[in-house]
Amino acid sequence: MSGNGWIWYPGDFELYHGMLQNFQREERSYGWPAYWKMDDWRKNVRFCNSYQLEEADRIRVTAIGQGYAAVNGRKFPFGQWIDCREGACTVEVFVGNMSGLPCAYVEGNVICSDASWTADDFTECHPVGMSSLYCDREKDPNEVYYETEELLPVSEEEVCGGVLMDFGRMVNGTVRVTFEGVPSEKASGQTGEDSMGDYPESAGSLPEVTVAYGESAAEATDLNWCYYKSEHVASGDVLRRRAFRYLYIPGCRAGQVSCIATHQWVPIPVKASFQCDDERINRIWNVAKETYRLCSGLFFIDGIKRDRWIWSGDAYQSYFVNPYLFMDEEIDKRTILALRGNQDIVQHINTIVDYSMLWLISIEKEYWMTGDKEFVRMIYPKMEGMMRLLESQLDGHGFIRGRERDWIFIDWSDIDKTGAVCAEQVLLLKCYETMAFCGKLIAADYRNYEQAYEKLKSNLFAFFWNREKGAFIDSYESGNDHVTRHANIFAVLFDITDEEQTCSIIEHVLLNQEITQITTPYFKFFELDVWGKTGHLDKVYEAIRDYWGGMIDRGAVTFWEDYDAAQGEPEQYGMYGDPFGKSLCHAWGASPIYLLGRYFLGVRPLEPGYKTFEAKPRLSYFKKLDCVVPVKGGSVSIKYDGSRLEITSDREGLVT
Amino acid sequence: MSGNGWIWYPGDFELYHGMLQNFQREERSYGWPAYWKMDDWRKNVRFCNSYQLEEADRIRVTAIGQGYAAVNGRKFPFGQWIDCREGACTVEVFVGNMSGLPCAYVEGNVICSDASWTADDFTECHPVGMSSLYCDREKDPNEVYYETEELLPVSEEEVCGGVLMDFGRMVNGTVRVTFEGVPSEKASGQTGEDSMGDYPESAGSLPEVTVAYGESAAEATDLNWCYYKSEHVASGDVLRRRAFRYLYIPGCRAGQVSCIATHQWVPIPVKASFQCDDERINRIWNVAKETYRLCSGLFFIDGIKRDRWIWSGDAYQSYFVNPYLFMDEEIDKRTILALRGNQDIVQHINTIVDYSMLWLISIEKEYWMTGDKEFVRMIYPKMEGMMRLLESQLDGHGFIRGRERDWIFIDWSDIDKTGAVCAEQVLLLKCYETMAFCGKLIAADYRNYEQAYEKLKSNLFAFFWNREKGAFIDSYESGNDHVTRHANIFAVLFDITDEEQTCSIIEHVLLNQEITQITTPYFKFFELDVWGKTGHLDKVYEAIRDYWGGMIDRGAVTFWEDYDAAQGEPEQYGMYGDPFGKSLCHAWGASPIYLLGRYFLGVRPLEPGYKTFEAKPRLSYFKKLDCVVPVKGGSVSIKYDGSRLEITSDREGLVT
Repeated sequence: MSGNGWIWYPGDFELYHGMLQNFQREERSYGWPAYWKMDDWRKNVRFCNSYQLEEADRIRVTAIGQGYAAVNGRKFPFGQWIDCREGACTVEVFVGNMSGLPCAYVEGNVICSDASWTADDFTECHPVGMSSLYCDREKDPNEVYYETEELLPVSEEEVCGGVLMDFGRMVNGTVRVTFEGVPSEKASGQTGEDSMGDYPESAGSLPEVTVAYGESAAEATDLNWCYYKSEHVASGDVLRRRAFRYLYIPGCRAGQVSCIATHQWVPIPVKASFQCDDERINRIWNVAKETYRLCSGLFFIDGIKRDRWIWSGDAYQSYFVNPYLFMDEEIDKRTILALRGNQDIVQHINTIVDYSMLWLISIEKEYWMTGDKEFVRMIYPKMEGMMRLLESQLDGHGFIRGRERDWIFIDWSDIDKTGAVCAEQVLLLKCYETMAFCGKLIAADYRNYEQAYEKLKSNLFAFFWNREKGAFIDSYESGNDHVTRHANIFAVLFDITDEEQTCSIIEHVLLNQEITQITTPYFKFFELDVWGKTGHLDKVYEAIRDYWGGMIDRGAVTFWEDYDAAQGEPEQYGMYGDPFGKSLCHAWGASPIYLLGRYFLGVRPLEPGYKTFEAKPRLSYFKKLDCVVPVKGGSVSIKYDGSRLEITSDREGLVT
Repeated sequence: MSGNGWIWYPGDFELYHGMLQNFQREERSYGWPAYWKMDDWRKNVRFCNSYQLEEADRIRVTAIGQGYAAVNGRKFPFGQWIDCREGACTVEVFVGNMSGLPCAYVEGNVICSDASWTADDFTECHPVGMSSLYCDREKDPNEVYYETEELLPVSEEEVCGGVLMDFGRMVNGTVRVTFEGVPSEKASGQTGEDSMGDYPESAGSLPEVTVAYGESAAEATDLNWCYYKSEHVASGDVLRRRAFRYLYIPGCRAGQVSCIATHQWVPIPVKASFQCDDERINRIWNVAKETYRLCSGLFFIDGIKRDRWIWSGDAYQSYFVNPYLFMDEEIDKRTILALRGNQDIVQHINTIVDYSMLWLISIEKEYWMTGDKEFVRMIYPKMEGMMRLLESQLDGHGFIRGRERDWIFIDWSDIDKTGAVCAEQVLLLKCYETMAFCGKLIAADYRNYEQAYEKLKSNLFAFFWNREKGAFIDSYESGNDHVTRHANIFAVLFDITDEEQTCSIIEHVLLNQEITQITTPYFKFFELDVWGKTGHLDKVYEAIRDYWGGMIDRGAVTFWEDYDAAQGEPEQYGMYGDPFGKSLCHAWGASPIYLLGRYFLGVRPLEPGYKTFEAKPRLSYFKKLDCVVPVKGGSVSIKYDGSRLEITSDREGLVT
């Protein structure tokens, strides 16, 4: 980031807000903090910079926390203007903050807080962390400043002795409740907003109502099983931030109670648009956009109702969508930093071994989008730390194995997880390649990763490639020679197979009806990416229309965590054994934006940071196109009227 | 601790409150957080216990933070009564707390939070932490519950157009200011109490005053250089907790403004009393007691005005006083845990290498007092972690050397610190011995420490023992063969020298007027301990009467950080180049309590935890004695009327 702004210890903004995010889950009157080890941000920080002033400067230091500023060793309280004489001038800011992120803001003519400062915790110095969201002195980096929009229900109907309000879209925000004819006494005070399960109390003699929430009407009207519910709500109460489309107020009639929602979102501009002749595809793109925007706050989260946690696997897929919608570098970096935590690591990200590896692999992806070598340099020690953890779990063949508390996830599917699991080895192989790539980039020593890559690749084929089946098997230790799609998909995506092997996998696995189908949208993304990568665009197009279109047909305003055409109302809302356990606004549902942008509009960087980039739309699928796809520092416009194709960009480097 | 109470992740109470303590320093309108790396307490914790219930139980879980209780996997909000059926019952409590210490309190007939629970941060499980100060559900472990006493000035006089109030003793607490004839509107609200530099504002048209603080009258009346000062104080304001004896209010006359102090202290009972025929000695003991009580909060701090930080060297000496006054095991343990931080360590305690080693050595001392093997078992991994840090700094001879940012302190004295410093090696030798002692105790592998001890001892004598001088030299690398008292004192205290070498040190160093005298009270403690240990009690007695008595002669109500009989008013209040930089209530000033109890009353444990203990008063110094000295689980009473000596104890194990 360039320019003046708040500064903090690098990565600590992400640890602080990441923890806050992972503490946001709420379920039926209790809070549900994420069940993994959470790393701490530093509470005691020193910021420092040195200048050679050509003329005197006057500075003011603002900080969140307690401490002092020191100019050439002399101490001053925060908030007062300090005269700095010309010549050598070293400014230090010491900030301690027990309950939040220690940070500082320095104003002066020459001396001001910017990316040239360093931060330390009284051990090593590092360049400070900053964010374009926190340039103003008035914006405390401990707070999230949402954009807001007031929303009213688009319809109200009386149901089972209560009123069901439909906002017509997913809302993520607060709700203000007022009773007809009752003055709103609590107008200025929000109640229960930030405390879990801390519902507002009755305001004396005023009547009270219960407000039940639902992503579906079925959920809102089920007072026992809906996820969120506020009881004892009095007129004027403002209810805490939650996600919903419907509100249900039992025991009242239409017109008696009004609810105004304040929808809140972190301002990240949408830089893409999509318009083709197929309205179904247009609608899918728009619903995917809505889904993705809702799940993109300071971080990529999984869903806005549930879990609201930062999951590495979910985030990995969000990184693919980002360049085709936001092209926002900061949300990627924030998410990467929040997921990883501090240098020393003892537990896998989200406790999942494959999620640790996807985290590592994502950094190369990120670099292709941004071309930001400094970020790679900053994160590389944490990548090395991650590799040390992974390598501590290798067996004699170089295969990674789960430890006692590790979760070998891959997917909810019948994968044979006996001993060393194939898909994990494929990810590890890609990790070595990523380390070599990033290490080379920043002139670190990467040769050992190249050697490890060769050794593991050789053993992977020796132990897991089954010639008869023409595919990778899940486990060589069980003796079952079981084949699932997962490892084979990863192998093709990560260019581990040669052409012949790839063809074999397509024939014997992907096109083989006897191999269990992928059922989760999570892994469906990887499968469709393989279809796209290998040129089977019909399969991708069909999936978008059928799978995502199927949700549209059911009135979805955002895409779901999971969709099974065989299920109807209300079973389609259930998941994990919970009747409303399914999230109906789930980030990984947004992948059509990537699939359409990458394979059908054919936009991709040819060099890191889009130094050159390609736009090769597949016109056979469209009669008309009017689309904009962002590229780093600009965008590419694709227009097609059935005969004439016009591709333009406000950036150099376009290859068509 | 036995019984029901609040539980937390072990050691985290100490990290939380230790950080709060190290953020308490205030100086001339700014906060001064301690300048070292501070370790974090865990924010996301799981508590767990399993029971085999013979009959149904009903439990209620209270927590500080958000989360839920799970009984056999079923989730419940905090605060509600939960029925637990007979049979196997596993209770888990998940608590996340961003801004404070996550902790839990479980009430039931059989199931309740006690020492049998475990805590984890989603990695390893450990027995929970508890404190006898937090047994009640109403007492949030994030708060400190002080005992309080209201105090009025004992005198007021008009000085230079203002009023100087003398409270006649050191106070550590808040001050309520009221103006004559002005109703106290702010009676219920404390202002500026917990925020640094956040002084109360003017209350409309009421007059305002400035309140200046001083440990001495000279400090309070110096509006430019006094440490603490509140401006714009209105009638009814309550000023934040500070240490002082005097208050000065400029611009007012006697009777116009009244100040009531609320003195606050952590309740730790004094279990000792001391009365002899020498009133000077009695007065010294009592002033030492007052000093020590004031500096003993949740932790042993250095001083109540300045720094208010937890220093390992200062605490080390407080551990010696504790058994002769409080015999409070918990304050020792809290201080030890707060100083050390988390398992992984990269920086020395307080940045000082010798303070790291004194920390380690203190644990054997602590064990001799408490006999608490479980504490040794709990802390041993952190001792091993400390040894790894120390051993990472060894040279080929096994000598420890400072790294770039390490502070080799030993004492404010002209020690030759070229290369490997002798005193550091002596401390390291004692560390090896401590590791072997504690390791043996808990059946850990300690042989390597014994071997390291032998190697280091041999090299220590080979390189640092100078036969001509009959003493240890500071540095062998400088070629200066410079001798100071420090390493030689440590060597005798830690039994590294044989009798002949000890005699040589006494003759050639301690009694040698040409060797620079010890000037700091910090090291004077070690020197007097050697005099006591080697039977030179006259020297100790003389020092108590002269050095400590000298402060009494100047009207000291608590003992000072430093005392030089050659200095008068007001130079005697200056230190570190600051006219009021000296702390006049400094914990290490309390050592007469140890010296009198240990050497003159002759009380000491003969076995760890005072299983047997000795009481051998040195009657030649007294005509009369009426003293009580605590022992673990009881006390010993010593009465002497000049002819008859009566030593009794309410505990078995007394040896006279």
